[in-house]
This record gives sequence, structure tokens and C-alpha cells, in this order.
Amino acid sequence: MPDMSSDLALFNELAEILLSEEKNKPVAERIDSDKLYGSIDLSLNDSGLIDDEFKGVLRDILIATPKTATNLFFNQLFGGRQGKAVIGDLLAVLLNNSMYTYKVAGPQVGIEQEIIRQSCDMVGYGAQSNGTFPTGGSMSNYMALVMARDSKDPECRSAGMTKPLTIYTSEASHYSNAKNVSFAGIGKDNIRYIPADTEGRMIPEKLEEQINIDVNNGFIPTYVNATAGTTVIGAFDPIDQIADITEKYNIWLHVDGAYCGAVIFSKKYKHLLQGVDRSNSFSYNAHKMLGTPLTCSIILVKDKKQLHDSFSNEADYLYQTDGDDFNLGKTSFQCGRRNDALKFWTLWKSIGTNGLEQMIDRQFELADTARKYIRNNPDYTFYSFDDSISICFNYKNIEPMALCTALYEHQVTVVGFGSFHGDTFIRLVTVNANNTDRDIIHFFKMLEEFVTKTPDLTTSKEAILELS
Amino acid sequence: MPDMSSDLALFNELAEILLSEEKNKPVAERIDSDKLYGSIDLSLNDSGLIDDEFKGVLRDILIATPKTATNLFFNQLFGGRQGKAVIGDLLAVLLNNSMYTYKVAGPQVGIEQEIIRQSCDMVGYGAQSNGTFPTGGSMSNYMALVMARDSKDPECRSAGMTKPLTIYTSEASHYSNAKNVSFAGIGKDNIRYIPADTEGRMIPEKLEEQINIDVNNGFIPTYVNATAGTTVIGAFDPIDQIADITEKYNIWLHVDGAYCGAVIFSKKYKHLLQGVDRSNSFSYNAHKMLGTPLTCSIILVKDKKQLHDSFSNEADYLYQTDGDDFNLGKTSFQCGRRNDALKFWTLWKSIGTNGLEQMIDRQFELADTARKYIRNNPDYTFYSFDDSISICFNYKNIEPMALCTALYEHQVTVVGFGSFHGDTFIRLVTVNANNTDRDIIHFFKMLEEFVTKTPDLTTSKEAILELS
Repeated sequence: MPDMSSDLALFNELAEILLSEEKNKPVAERIDSDKLYGSIDLSLNDSGLIDDEFKGVLRDILIATPKTATNLFFNQLFGGRQGKAVIGDLLAVLLNNSMYTYKVAGPQVGIEQEIIRQSCDMVGYGAQSNGTFPTGGSMSNYMALVMARDSKDPECRSAGMTKPLTIYTSEASHYSNAKNVSFAGIGKDNIRYIPADTEGRMIPEKLEEQINIDVNNGFIPTYVNATAGTTVIGAFDPIDQIADITEKYNIWLHVDGAYCGAVIFSKKYKHLLQGVDRSNSFSYNAHKMLGTPLTCSIILVKDKKQLHDSFSNEADYLYQTDGDDFNLGKTSFQCGRRNDALKFWTLWKSIGTNGLEQMIDRQFELADTARKYIRNNPDYTFYSFDDSISICFNYKNIEPMALCTALYEHQVTVVGFGSFHGDTFIRLVTVNANNTDRDIIHFFKMLEEFVTKTPDLTTSKEAILELS
Repeated sequence: MPDMSSDLALFNELAEILLSEEKNKPVAERIDSDKLYGSIDLSLNDSGLIDDEFKGVLRDILIATPKTATNLFFNQLFGGRQGKAVIGDLLAVLLNNSMYTYKVAGPQVGIEQEIIRQSCDMVGYGAQSNGTFPTGGSMSNYMALVMARDSKDPECRSAGMTKPLTIYTSEASHYSNAKNVSFAGIGKDNIRYIPADTEGRMIPEKLEEQINIDVNNGFIPTYVNATAGTTVIGAFDPIDQIADITEKYNIWLHVDGAYCGAVIFSKKYKHLLQGVDRSNSFSYNAHKMLGTPLTCSIILVKDKKQLHDSFSNEADYLYQTDGDDFNLGKTSFQCGRRNDALKFWTLWKSIGTNGLEQMIDRQFELADTARKYIRNNPDYTFYSFDDSISICFNYKNIEPMALCTALYEHQVTVVGFGSFHGDTFIRLVTVNANNTDRDIIHFFKMLEEFVTKTPDLTTSKEAILELS
């Protein structure tokens, strides 16, 4: 076995460069995409590089890669870095177990199952529940959809799609719902987008109306996707009221908590998921509110038989020891599967459920700080709502796309824009629990200062045209 | 931003423990699954652990986790550890970019695209080709199937499955094919398992026969999955002859090279993929023959429009700068997606294409060594074939399941068993390019010594019953 010490030494050296770069230049200098290949030597060649050249290229890459862990990154539904989670993921890289069997994953199976068991308890799912770690939030939704389809029409697994199934999700839900119905052979024509109210929540009455229309037209309502934290404005669909409907019509209810499902960890905010125990499946991404490295997605299923029925397989070459409960390949989409559990487990173990709760609560506090700042400042227009960590606003009627792009290109801060019910606005996401109130106020101050220094922003039509 | 130095120090300390443990105990002591939770404190609690306790638990876990990087691990289609790839993956954990947009992934997009471009060149796919990094080999096959389905029946994306599509794969191919037809709404009844010849290769004449039967019965042949390295015996389907048929009948040809597709890197062995340039899609896993950490799967598509047609989406909140060629979320199944490319790029960059070639060639040399040993020793029965890195054998008619389990439980070596055409045998996989001829001979010597010391193995009926 080759010695790893020089490779680990190089990693440590590069890690130090990266961490110091993050301090000195929290927003990486942007390289225009059309200049990328001319700026850094990304080429792969017949011959390898000697160590110093290799280090030099990696250094260039690290410096130019967008920094997602700093206090100036607000662009995605993840951000920041939790050191204890990083330890777990670094170890997972070295350990390199595939999660399909107890034979090759050993205690890592228990680690995954402990997270799932505790999560099921928090959701209130009861003794028949279980879950798995899909490869992301889209895949979580997809697995839920496949289970819903197979449980409504068990013949589908062998005969293929033969029945006119329909599925329901809010107009404000994630785009994976549309892709997933296509993948599953249901077809995008059979997805029904239910209107959201002015605060972005699915309107239950509209859902029931649509279900009745479909039933009358001979369709078979199969699946309702409720969202805990919509992608743009972070709204929570009213799960309890939706569950009244899905129970009445015998429809699978999935709660997509990819963004904000982790509020189950907070005594103060878990009421936003009121009724989740009545759902059939629920997913959340620990790589979003809980700050683990990408990806760490968890789907929980109230009746584990559904997971098994849709995803199990026989493979003697693979399952050679121990029972199904320890051979996790029997309930996953994948065969070989990376260990995404250890990073979440190290974080949870080291700070406890109480520590995770504090992370969640902190993000809502930061959101409150941002909302208060905006509401107290007449130069801002506010577009989002309480109980959300997505803060949507415009400043002095400046075109948000142009402003976001300019902020990024001038290395001020990385933030994105979004749209809801006809308005387009900047979306600040307070998902980095390492941030303080000061970081949030600093964001606004920097934005204001930048606008003052950049007067042509208000008429930046070229920037808009370029983007569209 | 919190300081990472103490967390990195703890990682380094734990890494040292792990690496020294791998040297001293290359096969981890097995904990019976029913004793797992009593042996290590895997519990998650309200309160966190103080640092020393945290370190202690992690140490216990590291020691008890099966070691996949040592020279005694032969159980899966991956094994060993490439230091330069590890560096890339450790950095990817710290960088934590999601690969959907150039805005948040920057140069990492170019890294992924450079791997894909070079791979397409090696396959001979031409200027219209592209690809992506799916989350594993099963997902690669699934993406290919969805593209095949959508290209045969473009209405399917909107209307759902309405046509009687059939798909074809060898009886020796991976189980994901069966799962995938179910997921895609095609149904398991519509998968045709084509017989393999005595050396495990799909028989093209049988494929054409079956296609004609289906056409006559009103089915629409849609997809042929050819395998480059079957899961159990490592056979290569005759791609060129299969391509004659898929071209004649206008059927999508996918080459599943998850296990051994990386032979495209070897001048000596790429002939095993003769005809791959005629396929529509091709996938390989760099985490298998090329030794990167899990997972690193690549799918290449001859006509990138197919990838876009099946997987693209509109999402203004996400795609805010740069063109589609740099916003990789437009051609992936996933939305948020971990950086699986950097680890492969660091390996490739540091040792060059020539170095990757040597890794592949070495694995076949190790396989030759193993085959020669077995063939020269009458105590062994040999079940696999040349041009394969899966070495299948039995020793002195000892029940292979019982022997594998005993070898594992006594920490001798970790190896699995498999079946083909009615025979069950031990499967030694020479996929760890760090191994030497000596490691392979050592494996056999240890096995023989173990059998001599364990006379009751030959009649170990309980072990067999326990397993079945």
C-alpha cells in the first residue's frame, strides 16, 4: 500500500491556501466563462505533472473557484461551513465504503440508520417507518413519486404505465417535480400546478377542486407534493389541511423539505410542518439548513414496505451476509452509493440535537434581522414574508438581475434573484448559521455603497439584454 | 467565519489512526450486525460530546469500519486508494460547490467538461457529443434508458408512456436494468434478457431473433444495453456486432462500462470496446478501475441534444449568468450536485493519460497472474476467462459462500462469491492497481493456509443454511 503522508501534506498545504484566500478575498475574482480555458491550465495530457507544477495548478483553481463558505455568499440554499461536518466527510473520502451492504460498510450502516431512526421519531412516523439517503433533493422527490405511482398501481412495476395518473404540486414548488413526472413515464401533461396564495402557500381548496375535476374526467389522482420551504420565497405549504384532502381521496402525500424541512429540529419552528406525521414520505437536505457538505439528502417513509417494494432487488453477488435491515442497497435507487451519512452524524454527535436546533433558530433570527432592516428602510421594497429564511427585496427600483450580476462581477457579494407572482427581486438567503446579525447588516451596507458608486446601474439595459 | 484549524488538526489525527490501522489490521475486526449498537456508541442525543469523547467515538468507528483500501480487500468492483485522487476529493469537500451553474462552480465546470471532452474523443464520439457526471453506474444506465425512451417516443415526456416499448440486455448484465425499466414506466415485463455465450457475452444472433419476435408482436424495440465488464465474470459484450443490429433496427445502443469501460484508456485493451463509437451513449465509473473515491460516474452521449431534451429545465432563479454550455444543471438528472469531477481530474492531471493507462494494464497483469496461478494448481477449478479482471474459482470443492464468510469472519481477506450459468464460485477482483503480483499470490497462499487450519469448512452446512 502506498504511503499517503505526502498526499495528505499537500492537501493540508492547499487547504491552508484556500482558507487564507477565503479570509482575504471572500468573493473570488470571476473569470468570464469564455476566458476560462485560457486563464487556467485545465487541460489533461498524456504526461502527468511533476509535484510543484501540480501544486501550482491546484492553487490557481482553488483561488478562482467561487467561495461558498464565506459570509458574502448568499446565492444558493446552502452556504457556510460546519467544521465538525467537514471532518466526517473528509473521513468518508478516506474510508471509501459503499453503503449497499453491511459487509463493506459495517458501522457506517448503523450511522445512517441512527440518523434515519431519530429523524422518523421527530417527524412522528412510528415503528414501521424507515428511509434512505438519496443523492439529492430532486432524487428524494423522485423516489417519493415512484413509490406513490407503484402503490396506486402496483402492476406498473411489471406492466409499465397503463393508467391515467395525475399528480399535484404548487405553482411555487421545485422544478424537479416536472422533470420527475417525465422520468417516471407519467408525463408532464399530467402534473397539475395548484395556485399559491399571496404568501406562496398552496391553496388547499384549489387542490381539492382540481382533484375533483380530474376524478370526474377519469384520471386517478396519485401524488401530492407539499413543499416545506419553496425554492424562491421559502413558503411552507399548509400540510395539515392538505393531509385532510389526501386522506379523503387516498392520495400519497410527500413533503418536500429539501430546503426547510430541517425545522423539525426546532421547537420554535417545527409548527411550520404541522401535520407532517400524516404524510407518506418526507425529505430534507442536511446540506442546506444544517450546513453539511454537499450532498446529504434524507427521505423518510412512513411504511418501509413501500420503499422496499419500489427499490429492492435480488443480487446474490452483492448481498452475502446479514439481513435486509443492514443491507441498505435493498432500499436505494443506486447500487454503489457514497457515504453521505457520516458528515451529518459527526455534526449531530458533536453538537447534539440542541446544537442543530440552535443552527435552525439562528437562521430565522438572521432572517428577522434582514426583514427588520428592509422594513425600516424606505429605499427597499419587500416581497417575502415572516417565517421564511428567503428575504426577497428590491432596492431603489434597480433592476435586480443587473444588480446581482454587477455585485458578483465586482466581487462585492454573491446573491441571486428570483420571481414570484409577476415580481422579480433579489433573494437573500440566511441559510449560513455561522453568520451574525452584523454580517447581514454588512450585506445591505455593501449593496447600498456599491449602488452609490455605480450610478449607471439604474439604466443598465445592456446587462439585462445580455442576461435574457 | 469560524476557524477551521482545530477541525483540520482533528481530521489529520484521525487520518493517521486510520492509516496506521490499515497497516496493522488490513481486515477490520467484524462486529456482528446484531451486536453493532451495543459495541459502538452510535447514538445521537440532545447534548453534544466534548472534544475528547468525540474523538474517542470516531476512533472506534474508524477501527471497526471495513477497510476497502488495503491489499486484502477484493470484495467489490472497487478497491485501493489513489492518493492524488484523494487530494481532489478532500478539496472538493472544503470547496463545496454545486455543479449546476458556472456562477457557483466556476472553474470546476471546466474541470468536468475537460474530462468529458477527452473521454468523448477517446470513445470516438465526434463534435456533437457531451456528457455529465451521474451519481453512479445505475443512474448512468437510467439516464441512457430515459434518453432512449424519449428519443423513440418524444411524446412520452408530456403524454406519459403510451407505446409498447421493449428493451434488451444480456442475462449477465447489472440488476439496475430491471429496476430502471420499472422506474421509467416501461415495466419489467418489457425487458428481454438475451442469453450469454459460455464466456458471458451477449449472443448477437439471439438479440436479433428476439427483436424480430417483438416487432412481429407489435412491440417497439427501443434500447439495447451492452455491457463492458459484466458484474460477475467481467465479460465484454461484442459491441460491434450488436451495433450492426441496433443500426439496422434503429434502436438506441448504450454501453454500460461502469465496471470496465475505462479500458478506453489502454492501447492494449481498448479493442475490447471495438465499436463503441457506434453507440449512442457510453458510461464508465472512474471509482472502479481508475481508483478514485466513490462515486465518479461519467456518461457520454453522442448527440448532446438528447441529453438536453430529456434532462433540461427552465429555472430563472437558478440560471442567472453564462450560457447553457457552462450551466451544467441543464443536462443533469439532479439539481444540486456534488463535485465528483475534481478527484478524477487531480488524478488524471498528476499522472497523465499514460499513468491511467498503466493502472488499467496493471489490473489485467494482476488478473493474468491470478489466472496462471489457478490454472497451474489442480486444487482449483476455474470459471472465468481471459481479458477479464474478475477471477472466478473454487478451491478443493469447498462451498464458496461458506469459505468467503469464514475468510471474512476470521479477518483473513474480504472476498465475495458470484454465480454464472449454474455455477457458484469465489470472485477475486484485481481492480486495485496498487497491488503487486505478490499481493495476488499472497491471497491464494492465505486462503490455502486458512483452509488447512479450518478442516470443518468442507462440511460447513450450517454456514450455508445461515446465509440462504
